[in-house]
Amino acid sequence: MEDIRNTGGDRHEDPRREDFRDDELASARAASIAAELAEEHPADIAAALDEEEPETASAVLASLPRDKQIEILDLPDFDLSGDLIEALPVEEAVHLIAEMSADRAADLFRWMEEPARSHLFARLPPATQAELDRLLAWPEDTAGSLMTTEFVTVPSSWTVGETLRHLREIERTRETIYAIYVLDPESHRLLKAVTLRRLITGEPGQPILSVAPGHDPITADPLMDREEVARLISKYDLLAVPVVDKDEHVLGIVTVDDMIDAIIEEGTEDAQKFGGMEALDEPYMEISFFDMLKKRAGWLSILFIGELLTANAMQHFEAELERAIVLTLFIPLIMSSGGNSGSQATSLIIRALALGEIRLRDWWRVALRELPSGLVLGSILAVLGMIRITVWQMLDLHDYGEHWTLVAATVGAALVAIVTFGSLIGSMLPFVLRRLGFDPASASAPFVATFVDVTGLVIYFSVALVILHGTLL
Amino acid sequence: MEDIRNTGGDRHEDPRREDFRDDELASARAASIAAELAEEHPADIAAALDEEEPETASAVLASLPRDKQIEILDLPDFDLSGDLIEALPVEEAVHLIAEMSADRAADLFRWMEEPARSHLFARLPPATQAELDRLLAWPEDTAGSLMTTEFVTVPSSWTVGETLRHLREIERTRETIYAIYVLDPESHRLLKAVTLRRLITGEPGQPILSVAPGHDPITADPLMDREEVARLISKYDLLAVPVVDKDEHVLGIVTVDDMIDAIIEEGTEDAQKFGGMEALDEPYMEISFFDMLKKRAGWLSILFIGELLTANAMQHFEAELERAIVLTLFIPLIMSSGGNSGSQATSLIIRALALGEIRLRDWWRVALRELPSGLVLGSILAVLGMIRITVWQMLDLHDYGEHWTLVAATVGAALVAIVTFGSLIGSMLPFVLRRLGFDPASASAPFVATFVDVTGLVIYFSVALVILHGTLL
Repeated sequence: MEDIRNTGGDRHEDPRREDFRDDELASARAASIAAELAEEHPADIAAALDEEEPETASAVLASLPRDKQIEILDLPDFDLSGDLIEALPVEEAVHLIAEMSADRAADLFRWMEEPARSHLFARLPPATQAELDRLLAWPEDTAGSLMTTEFVTVPSSWTVGETLRHLREIERTRETIYAIYVLDPESHRLLKAVTLRRLITGEPGQPILSVAPGHDPITADPLMDREEVARLISKYDLLAVPVVDKDEHVLGIVTVDDMIDAIIEEGTEDAQKFGGMEALDEPYMEISFFDMLKKRAGWLSILFIGELLTANAMQHFEAELERAIVLTLFIPLIMSSGGNSGSQATSLIIRALALGEIRLRDWWRVALRELPSGLVLGSILAVLGMIRITVWQMLDLHDYGEHWTLVAATVGAALVAIVTFGSLIGSMLPFVLRRLGFDPASASAPFVATFVDVTGLVIYFSVALVILHGTLL
Repeated sequence: MEDIRNTGGDRHEDPRREDFRDDELASARAASIAAELAEEHPADIAAALDEEEPETASAVLASLPRDKQIEILDLPDFDLSGDLIEALPVEEAVHLIAEMSADRAADLFRWMEEPARSHLFARLPPATQAELDRLLAWPEDTAGSLMTTEFVTVPSSWTVGETLRHLREIERTRETIYAIYVLDPESHRLLKAVTLRRLITGEPGQPILSVAPGHDPITADPLMDREEVARLISKYDLLAVPVVDKDEHVLGIVTVDDMIDAIIEEGTEDAQKFGGMEALDEPYMEISFFDMLKKRAGWLSILFIGELLTANAMQHFEAELERAIVLTLFIPLIMSSGGNSGSQATSLIIRALALGEIRLRDWWRVALRELPSGLVLGSILAVLGMIRITVWQMLDLHDYGEHWTLVAATVGAALVAIVTFGSLIGSMLPFVLRRLGFDPASASAPFVATFVDVTGLVIYFSVALVILHGTLL
C-alpha cells in the first residue's frame, strides 16, 4: 500500500507496472467494472470496491459518474476513502474533497499521514481549507468532530413556500434537508427547528414559524461527548441535532446515520477494553498481526506485572502454606469467585455510566446496593463451598484432616468477604476511573480480577490465621 | 403498583384514598402540571412524568391534549407507557391504543400481564386487533417484531404532485413519511423506495418513478435478526427499511429511531452477559434488589461449581504440592494469565461476530491467527515471569531453592502453553456457542477464565512433572 501512497497518485510511476500496455488493459477493465456497478446502491458499489486492489478500486471510482463518486466517498463507514483519494491524481482528489460532505472530508484528513496530508490540503480551495480547519479543531469523539457543515438554515421571515423553493435548489448540496433551522434574521441565533414533514403540510403563503413546534430546539454543545450526543438523538428521536456555540449560532449538525456508526464503534471499543486490551480501531480480520499483538501485549503485560504481586503475597504466607497445605487447594476457587463477582459489578456500572443511567455523584447509592448484594452472593457461594467440602469429607472422596470443619469455615468466611470485596471494588473502580478522567470501560474484567486476586489472597490467609489459629496454624 | 393495575384504572376504588376531596385536589394538581408541561418536547414531558407517582402521571397524561398524549406514548424508550395505560379508564386506554403507532402498541401488549392484557385487547376495534395480532406473531428481536405498519405506499402510476398531496393528508398518521414505497398498481409488489427529499425536488406533473433511484429498494425479511437489520440501516444510511414477505409485499417498516434503541439495548445485554451474568433488561438503579440478585446469582453459582473442579485438580496433585511447595507460589499468576488472554480473545471474537465482520465458517482463519498470537503473547509473559524469579533469587529477596532455574523454566513453559491455550479457547468458544444456537456473548470473561483455570492447573502440573522430574518431583 505504501508505494501507492508515495507515488502521489501518478500510477505510471509504479515500479510494479511493466509497460503502458498493462495499464491500458487495467483501465479498460476498470471502465467495464464501473459500467456494471453504476446502477447499484452506493453502499454496494463501496462493498464491491473493497474487494478490489486499491489501484483497481481507484480506477473504477474514477470511471464512475461524479455524483456517484461523491455519494460513495460520503458513506460514513467506507474505510477505503483515504486509500482511494490518495491513489487518485491530485487535481481529481482536490475536486472530490471540495464536493464531499465536510465531515467526511475532515475524517479523511484525520486519517491521512504526512506528507501526503499537507500536500493535498495545500491545494484545496481556501474556503474548503477554512471549513476543514474549523472542523478539525475539535477534539476527537466530540459533537464538533462529528458534525458536518452542510445544513439548511432559513430566516424566520420566510414563508413555507419560500423555504420549499430554497430546499429544492440546494437539496443536492446538503447532508440532510429533513431538519430546517430557522434563524433570527438580525442576530442569526437559532430560533426553531422545523422538520420537512411538517413543512410540507404547511400552507405555502404562511410564515415558516407556523409549522414550527412549540418547544425550543434541542441542541448540542461542540465539546459534548459523542455518547451524550447519541443520548440526545435517541431521547428526542431526532434525525439530526444542531451543534451551537454560546451565542446560539449553528456551527454544524450531527446526523443520525453518523451517530449510529459512532454508537457501534463506541460499543466495539468498550467491549474490547472490557476484555482487557486496547481498542483495535480496525476490524479483527483486517488489522495486521503485529498491530493486533501491540494492542494486546501492553495490557496483558501490565496485568501480569500486577498479578506478580500474588506471588509476593504467597511468598509472605509460605510458612502458613507449608503448615497447612490443605489451604492451597481452595486458592484458585476463592480467587476466581472474587474476580467473577467483580466482573459482574463492573460490567453493570460501566454500562450504566455509559448510558447516563447513573452519574458520578451516585457512587454511594451504588455502594449501598453492592454491599448487600456482595454479602448475599458471597453467602450463597459460601454455602455451596462448605457443602462441597462436607460431602467430599463424608463420602471419603478426600481427607481434609481432623480440622476439616474449621477448613470449611475458613473457606466459607473467606468467600463472603472476597465476593463482597469484589462487588464493591468492581462497582467503584469505574467511578474512580471516570473521576480521574479515564474511560470507565478501562475497568476491564481482567483489571478488576487482578485487583481482587491480590487482595483476595491476603483476605483468605488473614481469615485462615484467625479461624485456624491454635489448630492448623 | 399492583393495586392500581387491579382496580382497572378506576381511581375511586383505590382503598388508600380517604375521600373525594383528596381526589379533586389531585386532579387539580395534575391539570396544573399538565398546563405547565404542554409546550415542552414530548420526550421532556415523558421524563417529567417518570418523576411522578404512576397515579399522578396518568392523571397528568389524561389532562394533556390528545396529540401530545399519542406523541408521548409513541416514544420508543418511554418505559412508563404500560403503567400509564393500565392506570387509565379502559375506554380512554382503548382510544389511545388505537391511535398509537402499531409497533409501540405491540410493545405494550408484549409487556402487559394477564388478565389485564386480554381484558384490554378484547375491547380494541377489530382492525386494531388484527393489526396487533399480525405484529405480535413475530418472534422477539426480529425485524417483524420491531416493525410498524404506519408507512406510506403509493401506486407507481401516481405523479410527484399526487404523492405530495397524499402525504400532506396522511402526515399525522404515519410513523415516517421520509421514505415512500412505490408499489406495482396490479400486484402491489414493492418496486422502488423514494425519499421525501428527492420527491420535493421533482416536477409535480412528472411520474413518481422519475425521482426514484436506479437501484432496487433495500428490504428486510420479517425473521431477520435485529442486529442484521441494524447493519442494513447503517450500511445503506437509511431512515427506514421496509420489511417484505416472499411476494415482495410490504408488511411494515423498521425506522432508524427504533433501531438506535435496539442497538443500545443489544450493547447493554452483550456487556452484561460478557461480565458473566444474565442481562438485567432494566436500568441498574430501577431493577429491584431481588431481581438483580437473581440475574447475578445464577451465573455466579454455575461458574463457582465449574471452578470447584480446580479444587479437584489441586487435590489430584496434592502429593506434588507437598514435595514442591514453591510451585504453589505461582498458581494465581499462571491461572490469571490464561484467563486474561482468553478474555481478550473472546471479547474480540464476540464483537466481530456481532458486527458480522466474521462468520461461522471463518473459525479456522481465527484459529490460525490466535495460535501464533498466543505463542508470542505467552512468550512475552514467560520472559517477564522468568526475569522476576531470577531477580528475586539474585537479590536474595526470596529463595526458590537450589533448583530455582528449573522452577523458572517450569513457570515460563507453563505460561507459553496456558496463554496459547487461553487465546485459542477464548476465540473458539463464541463460535461453538453460536453453532449450538446460543448467544456468542455468553462466552463471558468469567466463563472463559473458569474454563482456562481448570485446564491451566493441569497444564501447569504436567509441565512441572516433566521439567522437575528427578529433582523436586
